[in-house]
Amino acid sequence: MDKKDWKTPPRNASPDGAYVRDTTYIHDRIVRDTARASDGEAELWPVVPGRYRLMAARACPWAHRTVIARRLLGLEGAISLGLAGPTHDADSWVFDLDPDERDPATGLHRLKEAYDNRFPGYPKGITVPAIVEVDSKQVVTNWFRQIPVDFNNEWSDYHRDGAPDLYPENLRDEIDEVADRVYKQVNNGVYRCGFAGSQEAYEGAYRELWDGLNWLEERLGRQRFLVGEHVTLADVYLYPTLVRFDPVYYAHFKASRHKIAELPNLRGYTQELFGLPGFGDTTDFTEIKQHYYITHEEVNPTGVVPVGPDLSWIAEPHDRDRFGGSPFAAGVTAPGPVLAGEEVKNPEPFQLALP
Amino acid sequence: MDKKDWKTPPRNASPDGAYVRDTTYIHDRIVRDTARASDGEAELWPVVPGRYRLMAARACPWAHRTVIARRLLGLEGAISLGLAGPTHDADSWVFDLDPDERDPATGLHRLKEAYDNRFPGYPKGITVPAIVEVDSKQVVTNWFRQIPVDFNNEWSDYHRDGAPDLYPENLRDEIDEVADRVYKQVNNGVYRCGFAGSQEAYEGAYRELWDGLNWLEERLGRQRFLVGEHVTLADVYLYPTLVRFDPVYYAHFKASRHKIAELPNLRGYTQELFGLPGFGDTTDFTEIKQHYYITHEEVNPTGVVPVGPDLSWIAEPHDRDRFGGSPFAAGVTAPGPVLAGEEVKNPEPFQLALP
Repeated sequence: MDKKDWKTPPRNASPDGAYVRDTTYIHDRIVRDTARASDGEAELWPVVPGRYRLMAARACPWAHRTVIARRLLGLEGAISLGLAGPTHDADSWVFDLDPDERDPATGLHRLKEAYDNRFPGYPKGITVPAIVEVDSKQVVTNWFRQIPVDFNNEWSDYHRDGAPDLYPENLRDEIDEVADRVYKQVNNGVYRCGFAGSQEAYEGAYRELWDGLNWLEERLGRQRFLVGEHVTLADVYLYPTLVRFDPVYYAHFKASRHKIAELPNLRGYTQELFGLPGFGDTTDFTEIKQHYYITHEEVNPTGVVPVGPDLSWIAEPHDRDRFGGSPFAAGVTAPGPVLAGEEVKNPEPFQLALP
Repeated sequence: MDKKDWKTPPRNASPDGAYVRDTTYIHDRIVRDTARASDGEAELWPVVPGRYRLMAARACPWAHRTVIARRLLGLEGAISLGLAGPTHDADSWVFDLDPDERDPATGLHRLKEAYDNRFPGYPKGITVPAIVEVDSKQVVTNWFRQIPVDFNNEWSDYHRDGAPDLYPENLRDEIDEVADRVYKQVNNGVYRCGFAGSQEAYEGAYRELWDGLNWLEERLGRQRFLVGEHVTLADVYLYPTLVRFDPVYYAHFKASRHKIAELPNLRGYTQELFGLPGFGDTTDFTEIKQHYYITHEEVNPTGVVPVGPDLSWIAEPHDRDRFGGSPFAAGVTAPGPVLAGEEVKNPEPFQLALP
């Protein structure tokens, strides 16, 4: 990967002590009814197909959840997708995979421009996912946890036929409870391991992470999916971390008690999700590895990207049918083929064999 | 670990391109017959029990081979053992685990002093293993490949009763041939992966490493030990790399196609060796991990040492009995208990349960 035009390398690892994620976001939302009261100072934007573009990156687990939700729900026609490349400097994500290194719909070179268009001199993290209004090239929201919820609840007029309800009303409390624990101990837990600047902070994060993974391994030994009988947002939130665990977090973030491949229930669960349209077909292992190993200079100064590990297990048969049931409820169908132009750029050989 | 008195950190990774090990050593030898012609300019020193001390470190794989050979042969009474701590700066190994941070037999604080005593301003690598003459506190030799051979061939008058012949005359050609390939592709191959300064050099080293490990996995699917019917120096040379693979080389050196635990024949072979006196009881996983993760600042700038992986598999039952035979030839016995004071300082729970 070419780093020649890099300015300041991104900084993540804490010089001492524990890693604390900046969780201040642009809390605007896109909703069906903008006349209703907003939460605090956040603005409400109207659902309008074609008006917004989801800016993501294959590499980023927080963006990956929104890409999966968009595809499961069939929102490709209503909300277009821009994809930044896997590596970046302190000025954050760049559309360097596109012709002339510009996002074709907005002409943006760096995502930062869209943040500055909204708030000049925007002082916080330039993160994906970010929803950008195409015409104004302004960021509308980067609230990663709310975006999939609103895709499900607010955009339902534009869902495909046969789309699942990923956030059923009767399961919302349980989904939120599971997602809170998964976020704290697992999704963000791996970052707390990898960016810890002291042995003590790392060991605390490692214990938390494995407390969470032990709990998941046990739960998934009793049921096919995390909440209820079918795929929900709880699964959409967990999958991006699980699929990055063996190739990245195990070694790069020192999360290494076991690989996911070594934990029978998490292994089978990851295999089943990987095989579903929306999950495996939005996963680009090459971009994932390049992102972490090249962008985190303070963890991996050489920038060398591992060739391993062998991930072919993820496409092997799983045993999740032992629970009965199925990924989707009656009347729900799996998404169709990936939209032309949205295929992952670096499919693995075992990935090309997916149904 | 306290780094406060460190001066220059050690440098290993190549700023660009491939890692090349400095293989210039002090090629002196300790032999039974000093009247015979020496090889080139190297000096020959006489075998005299009590005159020499083997300076090693639990962390170092090159030193580990000599510690295993000394114990298998029962040379503890003839050649004493000094052990440097796991971490060091550019001035190399320090006896910081000993009272007052001085080796009790020689009073040395740093091993470097013994090199300078022999060759003032010694310009090459200050490495373990090194054999030091106790009275003069001078390094006699640091020729890591020759030391175990001479322990076997030249010190035989001082071997314990029932000691094995680790380098039988009729197998020497095959042992040398196997050891040459294992050295190039595996023992040194992992360092070539980890210290590569470019993606291209790393990928070449990774291919070589896995070519070697594939060959070993296949060979050990046909026979219990590497050469002949019993443990030889070929096994003594390979074990220190295998036992460090899952806790260190897999992640820290990006050797990560599979763990040894995932390769059935190498797994069983490593388990069998680990269970033999001389192998598992000379292995200190804590010092091994501290060495690599703390000393290699250019690979792991935070100095954080992973808690994982779970290595308990290494003490689980193996299936090597399927080949018949036994680790030692008829009339050979396993070494007795570890000499008092030479126990590993950080035994794992599963290690304490060893026979």
